[in-house]
Amino acid sequence: MIQRPRGTRDFTPQEMETRRYFENLFRREAELHGFGEIATPIFEHAELFTLKSGPNIIDEMYAFEDKGGRQIALRPELTAPSMRFFVNELTNFPRPLKIFYYGQCFRYERPQSGRYREFFQFGAELIGAPNPESDAEVIGLAADLIRRSGLANYNIRIGHIGVLRGKLSSGGVVPEEAAPILQKLDKRLYDEARPLMQEAGLSPATIDDIVSTTQIIGPPDLLERHSGEAIDHLKQVFAILRDYGITNVEVDLGVVRGLDYYTGIVFEVDAPCLGAEKQVCGGGSYSLTELFGGEKVFSTGFAIGFDRILLAIEKEGSTPSRNRLSAYVVPTSENMRHKAFAIVGMLRKEGVGADVDLMRRSVGKNLKYADAVGARHVIIVGEKENAQGSVTVRDLASGEQKLVRHSDLVQALK
Amino acid sequence: MIQRPRGTRDFTPQEMETRRYFENLFRREAELHGFGEIATPIFEHAELFTLKSGPNIIDEMYAFEDKGGRQIALRPELTAPSMRFFVNELTNFPRPLKIFYYGQCFRYERPQSGRYREFFQFGAELIGAPNPESDAEVIGLAADLIRRSGLANYNIRIGHIGVLRGKLSSGGVVPEEAAPILQKLDKRLYDEARPLMQEAGLSPATIDDIVSTTQIIGPPDLLERHSGEAIDHLKQVFAILRDYGITNVEVDLGVVRGLDYYTGIVFEVDAPCLGAEKQVCGGGSYSLTELFGGEKVFSTGFAIGFDRILLAIEKEGSTPSRNRLSAYVVPTSENMRHKAFAIVGMLRKEGVGADVDLMRRSVGKNLKYADAVGARHVIIVGEKENAQGSVTVRDLASGEQKLVRHSDLVQALK
Repeated sequence: MIQRPRGTRDFTPQEMETRRYFENLFRREAELHGFGEIATPIFEHAELFTLKSGPNIIDEMYAFEDKGGRQIALRPELTAPSMRFFVNELTNFPRPLKIFYYGQCFRYERPQSGRYREFFQFGAELIGAPNPESDAEVIGLAADLIRRSGLANYNIRIGHIGVLRGKLSSGGVVPEEAAPILQKLDKRLYDEARPLMQEAGLSPATIDDIVSTTQIIGPPDLLERHSGEAIDHLKQVFAILRDYGITNVEVDLGVVRGLDYYTGIVFEVDAPCLGAEKQVCGGGSYSLTELFGGEKVFSTGFAIGFDRILLAIEKEGSTPSRNRLSAYVVPTSENMRHKAFAIVGMLRKEGVGADVDLMRRSVGKNLKYADAVGARHVIIVGEKENAQGSVTVRDLASGEQKLVRHSDLVQALK
Repeated sequence: MIQRPRGTRDFTPQEMETRRYFENLFRREAELHGFGEIATPIFEHAELFTLKSGPNIIDEMYAFEDKGGRQIALRPELTAPSMRFFVNELTNFPRPLKIFYYGQCFRYERPQSGRYREFFQFGAELIGAPNPESDAEVIGLAADLIRRSGLANYNIRIGHIGVLRGKLSSGGVVPEEAAPILQKLDKRLYDEARPLMQEAGLSPATIDDIVSTTQIIGPPDLLERHSGEAIDHLKQVFAILRDYGITNVEVDLGVVRGLDYYTGIVFEVDAPCLGAEKQVCGGGSYSLTELFGGEKVFSTGFAIGFDRILLAIEKEGSTPSRNRLSAYVVPTSENMRHKAFAIVGMLRKEGVGADVDLMRRSVGKNLKYADAVGARHVIIVGEKENAQGSVTVRDLASGEQKLVRHSDLVQALK
């Protein structure tokens, strides 16, 4: 047997019903917020991703040379393609430009629980300004998406990269030295961060201040005791989120997200039920357009790990499931076959999900099949009933059976 | 500037709205017919496609070696992946198993008008039996999908590979000789087909009969004058389609589809407005499972060229477009900013698409932006009106303006 490639998945009809349900839920919510969907190709020139994330990303990507000798990569994420699209074709659109996307991304790494080589992201970008309004609008969308998903237990933690960067910079640490320190702080690896900060020449008091800053986690009023440009920006973001009715958000000044390109706010959402791989959403404000040959434009965006949030919802309880097949039609004899097809054709035209015996099976076997595919009703087309312009409708859940006239059938099944 | 790869496309919010509209229309219709959606990975082991279509397909695929030395290919079509999935995991599902899919496919060829290296297919497969019921059910779905799409001018032509194969075989032509002849006949290249048939030893009378058979195109009653197993099968397919209420179908005994693996009926749909590249759908009955290591199971399926059918609909007239943004909220002063955010938060919670000034622009500039993004109403939040618990609602199409109480706002915008 030919297997599917390692780290990829196939999805059954039942799984796809759940996935499309959440995909459409997210899409509707994003549209309610005035975001419009875009789509970009599955593969890009590899350069797009190395420009954004550095040359090391090549090792983690599905990168290959196409027949024309060009370096191509299956997209590992969708922010860089969105910004490439913006720079190439969307700069004349009214700003702020609010876009979202949903699709496959790819990474080449050892497959493990909850991590796939082909995975799905739902994300959004607001392109226009680095102000608190833009940041709150984007975090507000992420918060509303997760609330609508029905996930019960999660934390939205918001920080600002400028708080720690400011402290490092006023202590005389240059950006090249700051990056590895911030990465350690992001992972709360203080034993590894402290020596780096000492080497960079920070005083013990400053180091203590920086460590304790990363431990400021909790309700937004924790910010009242602090000041500075970044803190003031954060306060405004929390104020607008409160206006929007979004109060389940925390401040966390230790969020750094380990990516050099963030310029302002940074935020993460985690679902504790997922254990070690608990992050379901991450984002922040950044500027990438100038890297791709455009003018510098500030943006704020996020990506939700679609597979992970579905896993979290599943762990918390049951996911919704409906069967759209309302009726399965069974002729009782050869003579009734064409009548059965005609009834199915009519039901489908009226928007009633309907199926019919395609295998010339016995009535008994057909009832079994109808049950197995989850039909809600079986319509039995018998000669005697048909002569009187009727069929027998059986409700498969209750077992109740009744005679229904052809003309009343659509109504009876709704 | 970094360009997107050659032969690929980006889609703007307006384009995506149209594409998602048709994708969901097709999905709903397939579900009405009792088909369930599946999904398979973007890439597969290249062997899957060479087994189905022969080694030459490698040249037309995005095939590459992954870091583990495996031959991988971006999927050129979705029937082989569907059958691989079936053989691996779905053989215990009740039969007939009725599945559909929608997604990207890839081919490496010179990009040209209406043909892309990344393109989209919507298709379905019914796995179970090689009977007329199965064939009619699948053709019926294709016909209903295209009817629902709103395309006005198209032809559905149905043939049976057994008619010409039977005539070649009874004339003593072996299958290896038959394949190139059938390919020429499929393209109606009679001047090239005739010498091949002569070389294969067919009499002039048989050759004339075969050529005239490929010219039997028209209403299904053309079949009344003919007989044989394949003709009888076709007659039953047309009878069931008539039961389903599908009468816009023709017989075309010249349809061969040039693919060796078809075993019975074959059909094509073309949209004349597309000119040379007019085929929008193709399918037939086949058996592939045994190639992939499973038991032999007959199937019938088709794929619709999603990009082509959209192009045809666009050529015929306008495609539907709606804007989901009901309201754009504008504060008239700094004091009203937080009130504006609160109104937007409330509207979104009530399911009303709403957006708000994020750039602290003047009222005039905000009105321009609201118009540019296609909002239906502007809600002006002024201090005097707000003190009375009201806002001003302006209908951007009519220019009409009225005072609406906060508590009546959702109703006023619906």
